[in-house]
Amino acid sequence: MGKTRVADYIADFISGQGVKDVFMMSGGGSIFLDDGLACNKDLNAVCVRNEAAAPMMAKAVAMLTKNIGVVYVTSGPGGANAVSGLSDAWVDSVPVMVISGQVPRAYTSYNVKDRRIRNFGIQEMNIIDLVKSITKYAEVVNDPETIRYHLEKAVHLARSGRPGPVWLDIPLDVQAAVIDTSSLEGYEKDEGAYCNTPVQIEEIIALLKKAKAPLLIGGQGIKIAGAVEEFKELVELLDVPVIFSRMGQDILPFSHKNNFGHGGMKGQRFTRMITRESDLVISIGSRLSVPFLGENLDAFSKDAKIVMVDIDEAELNKPTIKIDIQCQADAKMFIRELIRRLKAEKLPDTGGWLKECRELKEKYPLILPEMKKDPIDLYYFCSRLDAASGGSNIFVSDAGSSYYVMGQALRFEKGQREITSGAFASMGLAIPLAIGCSFADKDAQVLAVTGDGSFELNIQELKTMSYYKCNVKLFVINNGGYVSIRNTQDRVCEGRYIGSDQGSCDDVLNFKKVADAFDLPYSLMDKSGSIDEDLKKIMSKSGPILIEVVCDNKQKIIEPIKPKEAA
Amino acid sequence: MGKTRVADYIADFISGQGVKDVFMMSGGGSIFLDDGLACNKDLNAVCVRNEAAAPMMAKAVAMLTKNIGVVYVTSGPGGANAVSGLSDAWVDSVPVMVISGQVPRAYTSYNVKDRRIRNFGIQEMNIIDLVKSITKYAEVVNDPETIRYHLEKAVHLARSGRPGPVWLDIPLDVQAAVIDTSSLEGYEKDEGAYCNTPVQIEEIIALLKKAKAPLLIGGQGIKIAGAVEEFKELVELLDVPVIFSRMGQDILPFSHKNNFGHGGMKGQRFTRMITRESDLVISIGSRLSVPFLGENLDAFSKDAKIVMVDIDEAELNKPTIKIDIQCQADAKMFIRELIRRLKAEKLPDTGGWLKECRELKEKYPLILPEMKKDPIDLYYFCSRLDAASGGSNIFVSDAGSSYYVMGQALRFEKGQREITSGAFASMGLAIPLAIGCSFADKDAQVLAVTGDGSFELNIQELKTMSYYKCNVKLFVINNGGYVSIRNTQDRVCEGRYIGSDQGSCDDVLNFKKVADAFDLPYSLMDKSGSIDEDLKKIMSKSGPILIEVVCDNKQKIIEPIKPKEAA
Repeated sequence: MGKTRVADYIADFISGQGVKDVFMMSGGGSIFLDDGLACNKDLNAVCVRNEAAAPMMAKAVAMLTKNIGVVYVTSGPGGANAVSGLSDAWVDSVPVMVISGQVPRAYTSYNVKDRRIRNFGIQEMNIIDLVKSITKYAEVVNDPETIRYHLEKAVHLARSGRPGPVWLDIPLDVQAAVIDTSSLEGYEKDEGAYCNTPVQIEEIIALLKKAKAPLLIGGQGIKIAGAVEEFKELVELLDVPVIFSRMGQDILPFSHKNNFGHGGMKGQRFTRMITRESDLVISIGSRLSVPFLGENLDAFSKDAKIVMVDIDEAELNKPTIKIDIQCQADAKMFIRELIRRLKAEKLPDTGGWLKECRELKEKYPLILPEMKKDPIDLYYFCSRLDAASGGSNIFVSDAGSSYYVMGQALRFEKGQREITSGAFASMGLAIPLAIGCSFADKDAQVLAVTGDGSFELNIQELKTMSYYKCNVKLFVINNGGYVSIRNTQDRVCEGRYIGSDQGSCDDVLNFKKVADAFDLPYSLMDKSGSIDEDLKKIMSKSGPILIEVVCDNKQKIIEPIKPKEAA
Repeated sequence: MGKTRVADYIADFISGQGVKDVFMMSGGGSIFLDDGLACNKDLNAVCVRNEAAAPMMAKAVAMLTKNIGVVYVTSGPGGANAVSGLSDAWVDSVPVMVISGQVPRAYTSYNVKDRRIRNFGIQEMNIIDLVKSITKYAEVVNDPETIRYHLEKAVHLARSGRPGPVWLDIPLDVQAAVIDTSSLEGYEKDEGAYCNTPVQIEEIIALLKKAKAPLLIGGQGIKIAGAVEEFKELVELLDVPVIFSRMGQDILPFSHKNNFGHGGMKGQRFTRMITRESDLVISIGSRLSVPFLGENLDAFSKDAKIVMVDIDEAELNKPTIKIDIQCQADAKMFIRELIRRLKAEKLPDTGGWLKECRELKEKYPLILPEMKKDPIDLYYFCSRLDAASGGSNIFVSDAGSSYYVMGQALRFEKGQREITSGAFASMGLAIPLAIGCSFADKDAQVLAVTGDGSFELNIQELKTMSYYKCNVKLFVINNGGYVSIRNTQDRVCEGRYIGSDQGSCDDVLNFKKVADAFDLPYSLMDKSGSIDEDLKKIMSKSGPILIEVVCDNKQKIIEPIKPKEAA
């Protein structure tokens, strides 16, 4: 240790966290920060083509490596561009740390008496005020001697409790300052994860003793808490049906006897019949979001008792759902405690209820024989992609129909993982997320499915994909663009299309030419009969490729059946 | 009037403001807003490919039409994407109004007790908290009956004082609500522009009577106040040298006897000698920003008296410059008042000072004969582009070397206009700004110059350019990418390149293939000897084209000579 430049200290700190790749775009305001990366032998700088995409890539890395994802951007517009990807990490609870360059301290608007000044130094802006509402911690580092404190605090906050993005803004003169690392003060962490719910656990057990149709809901919080094994143990101990939120659906294989797949408005056909019938819902690590509850918030029976375990108090107190037992707790600690107590109890047999659920699962398969047709049905395509995949595959989906269909068609039988824009289902994240996945796990093969509308938003990153030879198979669903918006316009605007069809904007790209322009190999899939063979060929090779999949432009999305409709 | 849907009322209001084009991207959260556009016969919806670019296009429209520019986006990620372009409109004082879709009121996080909730309804986020720091007014419209008030207030604030962006967030149920337009309450404007500086004007006249080397500085504020004619009158009345900030440089032709062009760190070679020599600087409508004052803030002599006229109090009180006479005033009213008073005065003859300045202007021409060489020098190229242009041309530049060189080489002899990212010099704005220009003035031909680095950031909008057949000549300077960053890295990082060269990321695109992929004609310029002929051919046709200009990858930027260096 000893004397070192702040920029080098930051790079060393990041590599000390076990981070391998930093997603960055160079700039005058981050010149020393960037040089700190250049001087660090353990960090790999991945150059993106628009700062918007960097936090998306870092998000995928953070989720797969269970570490922080790191982004470097320059001042002013560099930081502003990154807001786009960062907001997605915010809603999806992902610890992404952005280190931004800033003008020298004397020229920052933070240090001007009248902070309403719009722009002060060269390419300067008050980025902290801009990102405050979408970060857990956002600070400018004005004193070089506080760098260790800020970094430790930022990483701790990013990863603890409900994880989320953090931001440190480093003025140029601070980046270049030389500090004595032996005298730096650190950050004292608070206690971190907690679970203080003995009373609630007794109440839950009392409810379980009375319940005739208990149901578990699992969400991403289980993965974040590192409680996947504990959750499986709980499922098997209780031997009740379990339904997952979108970001929790890769926790159990679909064929698992207790698993009824992905629920919510765009869940499996039969999930709604199960959720409506349950008299005791125990949700762990799922926000029970509006898309899960349904537009009329009637996913559960009014008489059902609802237990919700979530680390975020704000989620427990939402007006959309009345929670009977609130447990603000870390999922892992909660599940362990519940299991410990359950082992001392004898619960009533609810095997009949589980059997009923299984009958529904068999009665309403997602993929029907008539889906094998031309033009290709997106459900059929995604189910064949799922069938062709194995444990080293990571799925990435994009917005709109690819989001919905992948959510329903993936079965996760072989330990495949999925990375997506969960809460937002943002358009255009498939390309950057897929790139991030390929860096996070160099042995993995990424299977990304995007739509022709979503594809365009971060098309610039195709060059990043080809330049770094990312092992990404990018399937672009050509269905005439914006099919999901057209479906809504048909429903509520008497079929007036705007911004969603060829008459107004959506003359789709020539994907073969696009692939060529960005130095990517190209392949076309337009026959349902040869999908399996085509996939085998595509997946047998390493490296990036763009595959155009010509699909039905009238694709409809399967909605869960309402219980009364089934009756 | 009578009963109407809020979405239709908004569209009618916007077209009532004289706005013709709305830049939008469709989405589920803005479905009725978008339908309001579809139903309005007077508004043209221009569909962009990433919301980030919409405020950039609207910015160009606002600046050229001297009206508001309007953007429609959907909820959540739609709004977050738009932050990127909006921050540029904020620092450049441009009245852009964003109308965003939002989930139904009951599902917005505004209406949850615990506003820390990260995401509530479907694709929802608290966009108001996110954009507050880069807008003059940002509100959610919770009550349909207040729509008139909010729209009138937003437009008034956007356009008055120092203009800037505003944002209205409209929940789906408000968009669809039917209101009685006859009973809506409006917004009562405050007084608007003002100028209460009689004392200061007397002081300024006293200073002018003593000054031996008075200098005028002109900035964008003159154009915003509609005071171009008044400013010209003032220049001729005082008959003193005038230097412009980057965003004011198209106010006078470069050949005008009092005009010494664009000043600041990347101004004309001789401007620094003039600003250092002046003993009385009167700045009108320029922020006297750090890039103008120079990194050492020593553009002016310590003994010079400084007068600054600006509408924004925060700019007058910056610590970077000590202002002797502060005038918080509208530029037009101030100039009129000053002229009125000056006509009663006899000022000393400062013709000798003006003559000295003219000698410098002659002694240090920008374009030297040796610049006509291969590979093409960017200065030579830009000067020939300038020479080939006329009054119906609008120049657009991008970041880095294209920003600097265009700032120095354009002469504005024939009333050409310029639109750029002024304060930020953001990367990637040339394509969207150029598209915006082509909509703002359908008879104009847009000459946009971008770099191979900047080109990539909003490359998706090339499809917008080809789809709408925008009359844009897009010159892409191929100099191996990021030349401006490499220059800085040479200077301060001992030549360690990161994120700026082929070794780390910048394998430049094949522009011919890119043009083809986005349905654009392509042309190559790589010989300085045929530039004039090539330009003539390119500019003789209407419609979009991408022209690759192969330039010297060692391009250096001309810096103003420091007075001591010249001595």
